[in-house]
Formats: sequence, C-alpha cells, structure tokens
Amino acid sequence: MNKFERAQKILKEINGDGWLIVCNEDSDINSKFLLGVESHALHFIFVSTDGHHKVLPVEMEANMIRKSLGSKGINAEVISYNTLKDLISKLKPIINRPKIALNFGENILDPDGTPYADYLQVGAFFAIKKINPNTKFISAAPIIYGLRSQKSSEELKDLRNVCKATIEILETIPNWVKVGMTEKEVMAKLEYEYSKLGKPSFPAIIATGIHSADPHHNTSTKKIEPGVLLIDTGMQIDEMCSDITWTFWIGNEPPEDFIQAYQTLYEAKEIANKYYIANTPNHIPAKECRKYLSEKGYDHEKLFFHGLGHSLGFEAHDIGSRIGWKVSEHHILKENMVYTNEPGLYWLDKWGIRLEDDVIIGKDKCEQVTSVSKEPIVI
Amino acid sequence: MNKFERAQKILKEINGDGWLIVCNEDSDINSKFLLGVESHALHFIFVSTDGHHKVLPVEMEANMIRKSLGSKGINAEVISYNTLKDLISKLKPIINRPKIALNFGENILDPDGTPYADYLQVGAFFAIKKINPNTKFISAAPIIYGLRSQKSSEELKDLRNVCKATIEILETIPNWVKVGMTEKEVMAKLEYEYSKLGKPSFPAIIATGIHSADPHHNTSTKKIEPGVLLIDTGMQIDEMCSDITWTFWIGNEPPEDFIQAYQTLYEAKEIANKYYIANTPNHIPAKECRKYLSEKGYDHEKLFFHGLGHSLGFEAHDIGSRIGWKVSEHHILKENMVYTNEPGLYWLDKWGIRLEDDVIIGKDKCEQVTSVSKEPIVI
Repeated sequence: MNKFERAQKILKEINGDGWLIVCNEDSDINSKFLLGVESHALHFIFVSTDGHHKVLPVEMEANMIRKSLGSKGINAEVISYNTLKDLISKLKPIINRPKIALNFGENILDPDGTPYADYLQVGAFFAIKKINPNTKFISAAPIIYGLRSQKSSEELKDLRNVCKATIEILETIPNWVKVGMTEKEVMAKLEYEYSKLGKPSFPAIIATGIHSADPHHNTSTKKIEPGVLLIDTGMQIDEMCSDITWTFWIGNEPPEDFIQAYQTLYEAKEIANKYYIANTPNHIPAKECRKYLSEKGYDHEKLFFHGLGHSLGFEAHDIGSRIGWKVSEHHILKENMVYTNEPGLYWLDKWGIRLEDDVIIGKDKCEQVTSVSKEPIVI
Repeated sequence: MNKFERAQKILKEINGDGWLIVCNEDSDINSKFLLGVESHALHFIFVSTDGHHKVLPVEMEANMIRKSLGSKGINAEVISYNTLKDLISKLKPIINRPKIALNFGENILDPDGTPYADYLQVGAFFAIKKINPNTKFISAAPIIYGLRSQKSSEELKDLRNVCKATIEILETIPNWVKVGMTEKEVMAKLEYEYSKLGKPSFPAIIATGIHSADPHHNTSTKKIEPGVLLIDTGMQIDEMCSDITWTFWIGNEPPEDFIQAYQTLYEAKEIANKYYIANTPNHIPAKECRKYLSEKGYDHEKLFFHGLGHSLGFEAHDIGSRIGWKVSEHHILKENMVYTNEPGLYWLDKWGIRLEDDVIIGKDKCEQVTSVSKEPIVI
C-alpha cells in the first residue's frame, strides 16, 4: 500500500470522507511526506475515502508534482489553479463532503493532547469553514499517528542507512576541527558533506566552551577554543532523519570532572536503553536514567533540564510523545517506533555534555543504530 | 526604538492590550525576529501595551534567550516553565487582558486578505481561548505589517551587504561547476560558502536541462549536463535575505532561441524595474513586463506561469502582497519595501530561463541591489 492508500484505510476506520491538507510556504510537512516533493506555494491535498484523490497546486508547481506522484505509482489527479477565485471554485466541489479530517491538534496543552497534528493555521481553517459551512471537521491526528509513528521496514532500512552515513562523517571530525575555526565553519563543513548525500535534518548545534551549557545553542561565529566541543547534528536521506550528539574535548587531557560526567552519562544512557522496549510507558527510560544520575551524585533536576528523548523519523522531532520523567503514563512505546536517547548534564556558567544515540523500539530489546564513543574523544 | 517598543506603539494604535506569539518547532518566524535567537521548543512571547513584556520558554532555552535579549537591550522578563500545567498557570495571569492580538490571517483566500499574518495553529488557538475565554482576540496583521513591510535603514544596510556577499560567491560558479557534478553537489558547495557567513535563505534550486522548466524544481542527484543550468539561491546574514536567479549555458555556444529568450527576459526585467516605485500598484510592473514579452512574440500566459516578484526581507518570501498581473489594485508599493524582480520563460519538455534581481522601492526610482549578467554566461 502506498501512503495515500494507507491514509484512506485509516480514514474509513474513523468514518471520515476525506483528509484535507493545506500547505503554504512549507507550513505542513505532511505535504512533502505524501507528495515526495516540496511544493512551496499554497496548495491543497485531498485524500478521499472513495479513492479519488486530488492535489491542487499553483500552475508553476503542477508539472513537478505530477512527475513525483507518477514515480511513486500514486493515483491522484493534479488540478492546477491560477488565482484564489479559481482555487476556491475548484476546491469547493472536492471538499463538499459531510466529514473531513484536517491537521489540527486537540487539547494541545493537556498531557494527553495531540500537538503533533497541529499544522493548520487559524486563518486557513476559517477560510475552509467558510467554503463549506455544513461540513464537520475532525482532527487528522489518528491518520498522522497511524502513518508516521511506527516505522515500516523500508523506513527502518532508510534509518540504518542515514545513521551509518552520518557516523562516517562524524568520525572525520578529529581530522579537521581545529582551535580557531568558528562554530559556523564547523557547521558549514558538516552540512556540506550531508548535502552531497541528502540534507541536514536540522541546523547543527556546534557549541564551544560555555556555549555547550545551552542545549539548543544557536551556532555562532565564536571561535573553537580548548575545552568542551558539543556537536548535535543529523542528516536526512530519503524518508528518515538521524539525530546524534557527540561531546568532544579539545586540547590536552580533559579534567577529571569532565571525564566523570561523560562516563556517568554514557552509563545512564546504557541503562535507559534497557527500557526502550515495546509496551513500556514513555516515562520509564527517563526515570531510570535520572535515578542512576542521582545515585552517582548528580542533581539531575538542576543539571539535566530537558527530556531524555524524542520521536525521530521523517522529521528530526517526529510524531508521538517524548520520553521524559514527567510524561503522562498513558503514553506507551510501541514496536518499530524510533527514539533518541540523549541524557545531558549542564553547568550554566561552565560547560555541558550531551550524549545522543538513536534507537528502534523492539519487542524485547531495542536496536541502537548509532553509537557515541564510550570514552571522551580528545582532539 | 527596538522591535518590542515598535510593536508596543502599533498595539496602542489598534487599541490592543498585548501581542501574544505562540511558537513551537519554529512555527512562527516572528519569534526569531523578536528574540534574535531560534527557540525550538514550545514558547510564548507577550509584548505588552504597558511595557511589561514577557517570554515563557522551556527551562533548557531560557538562558540563551535571556542572553540574546540582553545583548539587544530589550527589557523583557524571561519566565521559564517545566510542565504544561506549570506553563498554563504562568501564562494565564499574563494574558488575562481584554484584547489580545494573535498571529492569524483574515480572509486569507480573498485578494485583500492578510495571509502573511497566518502563523498560529488551530489547536494552539483553541487552547489559548480555553485559558482566557473572555478575551477578545484580534489579528496581529497590522503589527507584523508595520514591523516588517517597509525596511529600516539598518535593514537596508544588511540587505546591500548580503546581496554583495551572495554575488561574490555566485561569480565563482564558472570556476568550479563542471558537467558530471550532481545538482546536489552544486547546492552543497554554494550553501557551504553561505554557511561560513550566514545561512542559506532557502534551499537552493539547482536545475539542469529539462529540470529548469520547473520553476520550483527540488534539487536532485541528477548530473549537470550540457545546456541550461538555472540556479535560484540566496543567503541570510543578520536581518536580511538575498534571493537571486542566474541562468547559465553549459557547453558550446548557446542556441539562438536561448540567447533570444535570455535577452528578452533581461529587457523585460529592466522595463519592470521602472515601475518598482512608491505609490505604484503592485500589478503594474508585472503588466508592463508581460506586455513587453508579448510584443517580442512570447505567449506570456503559457510560458510565464508565475508571479513577477515577492517581498523580500527577514524571510525570502516576506510580508506583503506579491507583484503579479492579477494582484488586486488595492496593493500599492511603498518606499523602502524590498522586492524581487524575476521574469521567466519555460518550455515544459525542454528548458526554462529565469533572471532574478532584488530591488528597493524608491520614491522616484528603485535601487537594484543585485545584477544578473546582461548576456548569458557560458560555462
């Protein structure tokens, strides 16, 4: 089954007549997921329960979309439009159905809400309601979750491939990173290598010294200095993203407190791994990881102020709940979900360390598809 | 006045009590515009009419945001949160005001609507309404338009700088682009150069041969072949983006039909330039450009199937109406707006040409800040 057919199957289960995706300026990644190509201008995709799927792009993107759908064997009619008036007249009869799923999340500030489905913008929503005032609009969360949370064997193959390729690039870092290069230069070189094979799955975080204490540091023009160098980066090839963090030490022998924290994080990550298995609540790996950090004398509430992991897939932050010690117990890991395992320790006025690997949830154990170094790599 | 103060001023004019920005996974670029840093996790920014501005990030991003605001001299309190429950309890008293502006567009499918303000997602909107059921929510379109459509002298300085730097990189292309490189390799090399100075302002379009007939072609692993090579690319440094398209000929002498189309497009672009002036309706430059193409024997309706230009600024597709022959006459160019001027001609089963420059709207004439070659560059 192709993605349109899989979506159609879920639509039937939720008694919907169609799934409408509205995408403008890349506002909804589910468009690229379905079309296999990035359409930047305002366009609509209608996956129909009756199998008569439609795509409404602007004229300048129609040819490219037709070719992409054709290459994937997807049977969807591509109807291009010229003006907004033209668009409305073509869209109206297509979506004139009793019950249509749209990409909005429900109760997104509740622990059991569906924020991962929240793509549609408010203005677009009211414009669609105005076109079809009698239609009932429901959240497409079950469709998005069904299509993207548990990965297919093809997707897992892509994941192993992109992780292997990313590691091969990361392994070259000690050969070319030097004191005095800027963080941006390191990012540029890494992303140059990615771009030859695929593309960066998110802007790389290159954090030297005190910058490593900010987990989401924005890579800057600061020069690499002796001490900590944290690199959080990933690539996308085909359908899947990698997301890996390595923390290096630049210069002479690292100090004892760095080595100690590094090794403890590595062990905490190994312990968490044991709980990345199907039917385990998402909060368990995080609790076990934090318990170990505590036992080793680290004040985890103060020093480890982010979640342990997130879903990984077509996006670096993919569909489904995070792994965190405060995540509601209703969220349960399932086979073939893919997650990061990334404990960190940060001293705000000093430095931070994060070690991040990617894992596939298995029935009895996880498959770790990346592997940070057990001992700190000294450059 | 800093950006918060400018927003506060517009808020007073529209009788709003505050402007609330909700941003999750980079869903609203106005967050980065205000904070000066990319905060990826769910966060809220409240620009208050009374001057007591607040930012509510997750704990892991609070330090970085505090530093960025401090470096810009912005007086806003940063209050971090831990859990969604914690977030709601901190957000509720801050936004408990009668009238709050949110980033949603109105009548986005009408020619006079405000699609450029449409950032807020549906689920987030209803979650906020639930927190404050008595608040009246209005569109923040006037604030976004006021802050970002007409550029400041500082922004225009950044624009000239980024355009100059981009051109210097594009001028090296004939030295290293060779037949047999892939499109992705060309993109990787260009973006590598950008990343050392800033970052790509959008994923470069590298289109060889027949691919150049798709104006928004997704750069692929196809090898560069003799014939047309279309490169549409740009960089962002500081506050402004460049967006430039050069069309090359690879190999021996270009054929007469290519030279003819190239020269006609260059002339059509020059003609359009004369109308990129303040108080001119947005549709005029496009009409004059198309009139000239027609006179030269090109069926513009069939061969030039996209708009002539778009607003350029903090984003490659920035705030305000496009330049197009069907754009409503209510849209008028203003001084210090920045636009692209990018006529193209495309033969779907053959190739396409697009020539794109960036211009600043002036009182009596425009300032063109980039310059495509008058004659085709042969590599």
